Amino acid sequence: MPPSTEELADRLARTRARMQRSGLDGLVVVDPANLHYLTGYDAWSFYMPQLLFVPLTGEPLLIMRAMDAGGAHRTALLSRERILGYPESLVHQRDAHPFDWAAEQLREHGFAHRGRIGYEPEAHFLTVRSFHALERGLPEWQLVDSHDLVNWVRLVKSPYELELMRGAGRVASAAMRAGIDAIADGARLNDIAAAIQFAQATGVEGVEGDYPAIVPMLPTGESADTPHMTFSARRLDRGEAISIELAGAHRRYHAPLARTVSLGRPDARLAGLAEITAEGLQAVLEGMRPGAVVADVHGIWREHLAQHSIEKPSRLGYSIGIGYPPDWGERTVSIRGDDLTVIEPGMCLHIIAGMWMEGYGCELSESIAITADGVELLTDAPRELIVREGA
Amino acid sequence: MPPSTEELADRLARTRARMQRSGLDGLVVVDPANLHYLTGYDAWSFYMPQLLFVPLTGEPLLIMRAMDAGGAHRTALLSRERILGYPESLVHQRDAHPFDWAAEQLREHGFAHRGRIGYEPEAHFLTVRSFHALERGLPEWQLVDSHDLVNWVRLVKSPYELELMRGAGRVASAAMRAGIDAIADGARLNDIAAAIQFAQATGVEGVEGDYPAIVPMLPTGESADTPHMTFSARRLDRGEAISIELAGAHRRYHAPLARTVSLGRPDARLAGLAEITAEGLQAVLEGMRPGAVVADVHGIWREHLAQHSIEKPSRLGYSIGIGYPPDWGERTVSIRGDDLTVIEPGMCLHIIAGMWMEGYGCELSESIAITADGVELLTDAPRELIVREGA
Repeated sequence: MPPSTEELADRLARTRARMQRSGLDGLVVVDPANLHYLTGYDAWSFYMPQLLFVPLTGEPLLIMRAMDAGGAHRTALLSRERILGYPESLVHQRDAHPFDWAAEQLREHGFAHRGRIGYEPEAHFLTVRSFHALERGLPEWQLVDSHDLVNWVRLVKSPYELELMRGAGRVASAAMRAGIDAIADGARLNDIAAAIQFAQATGVEGVEGDYPAIVPMLPTGESADTPHMTFSARRLDRGEAISIELAGAHRRYHAPLARTVSLGRPDARLAGLAEITAEGLQAVLEGMRPGAVVADVHGIWREHLAQHSIEKPSRLGYSIGIGYPPDWGERTVSIRGDDLTVIEPGMCLHIIAGMWMEGYGCELSESIAITADGVELLTDAPRELIVREGA
Repeated sequence: MPPSTEELADRLARTRARMQRSGLDGLVVVDPANLHYLTGYDAWSFYMPQLLFVPLTGEPLLIMRAMDAGGAHRTALLSRERILGYPESLVHQRDAHPFDWAAEQLREHGFAHRGRIGYEPEAHFLTVRSFHALERGLPEWQLVDSHDLVNWVRLVKSPYELELMRGAGRVASAAMRAGIDAIADGARLNDIAAAIQFAQATGVEGVEGDYPAIVPMLPTGESADTPHMTFSARRLDRGEAISIELAGAHRRYHAPLARTVSLGRPDARLAGLAEITAEGLQAVLEGMRPGAVVADVHGIWREHLAQHSIEKPSRLGYSIGIGYPPDWGERTVSIRGDDLTVIEPGMCLHIIAGMWMEGYGCELSESIAITADGVELLTDAPRELIVREGA
């Protein structure tokens, strides 16, 4: 069940409507999640320069490395002649760049006229060299920041997408159970990661797993004061706490989930923090409904923490959906005090309370979809500090 | 066993020697593999803007998101005061960027003087916005392409690094065995990927696994004409061929490995192609020795294929070592007709014959280290078209 022609046509139409509102005559899309969203294209080819050009009218043009262009029609719903492959001789050269070639092709296809062309200056895979090649090759263009235009189009999910998000949530919940079960005295972090990754790829009955945009994060013991260290052969000791942050992925849709597990009786400081965190998360979930403003929902959280004399400067979450390495966030809504987005049905968010204190920490999260009158939980795990006796 | 102070000092000294030869007064490093190489820093924080500034003299300065800066000293061998965290309020803002803050810090630390500053225009995680923020904030700088300066320093491995490469090779070989064992009639690609990923994270006796920069690639059946489609719930049919391309990773070092497996008796066309490929790979390995020129070694391969009336435009491999998503190649040596690099002991290469024909294909590879008089194989798997009866 790839996205239907109608689904993709609707996505493209909404993208173009937003382009027109922004006064854009064309859009250069490089973010692999945006590329997938607009065409269905899906492959690990984003480490080489590639782009989708979206004109205001007419079929988009996909330009990528020849070896990838040859198979792109297997996932991208585009005519074969709109998928162009640049020659292998342009890969990793000092004096030539694939986007020199892309610029020539865009010119030959009639897209070199004067106009405002949006691009994605904060996308991970638009390199500075790629950008300069477009500037040089298409001097007629006025390249302007699209301000994550397609990412914003992605914010509200279709019924088709919500089904994929539910599948991703089920995979996340199963992967979390696998991770928790692997926690035991003396267990190595890499073995816990192995159990999680096995569950992530396998999936659950009727929902196959896909690769998540980020590997499992396992902040442990003292180093739980920082969230993004990856797994090592470090062994767990009795009395330590470990946070698990992972995502379930299903057909590129992601539902992240975080829990903290104490191996043996938790220390009182951590148990107290975990309880405050869980109460705060519950209050936030109750405040999440259509019409609410993100900043106000964040206020519920900030006030709850303030009552306990805790300050947490990092945001409380972000929008989710399609994800590719290195990030599963959509880079649009951030749950914090300055985000004035009005919540709408169909938005999906990862609400993550990451409490990274000096020398200890805990994480607790849910992935949710906004419904007509509140919140649908996509993930399912006990919302508490989990204690493993782990003999 | 993280890299020793001496090892890191040597890497920095060789980087600075090359900077001086290139007339650079400083270097902005963003590529996570280069950052790891120069400091030991290792975490999944590269999806947010971060940089290492390397002056010609004095200690480098690491600038990253505050929540990551707080734990960076756990892996980075830098003084605590040389690790700076930008405030959370700068994350994903429309009108401010973390590198505005970084530019101010670089100025305050005395690095705003006029000079030629190298940067990495083709690094994956230097976004266009990041680059523009540096241009704007440090107008004294003449920002020039470093031409992957640190990547080239990484090309010849130290004895310490070669040990890690051998460990990575052992993990790769074990993961390949796990993948081959999972191939059976009706097996789903995602379940084969699950078995591989479990083995990749677990590692082998005495060598723990690490996450590879790329997920297992499993080009299958007709779609084996393109290399980078990722796994799905597609089931294997008897008579189909599947290629497995994976890497073993150990403490961020990567040894990739590719094999092709036929489920049941291979078709004659594929068997013939596989035999030609294996002979060619053997001839190339025999030609790989210190003093040889990469282009000449590639000529052995090209001539071998020409004898069989086959043309393969893509390169035959690339240098390997430290890897982070989305790529495990070092972006320096490419084994092809125009690469004039002279082979030296300590170089590590992934020699990959990827034969993507119309509607079928095979892959065969080895990861190698160049020794004083030839080649050390890092990977260990039967070098042939593997046949699984897989009832």
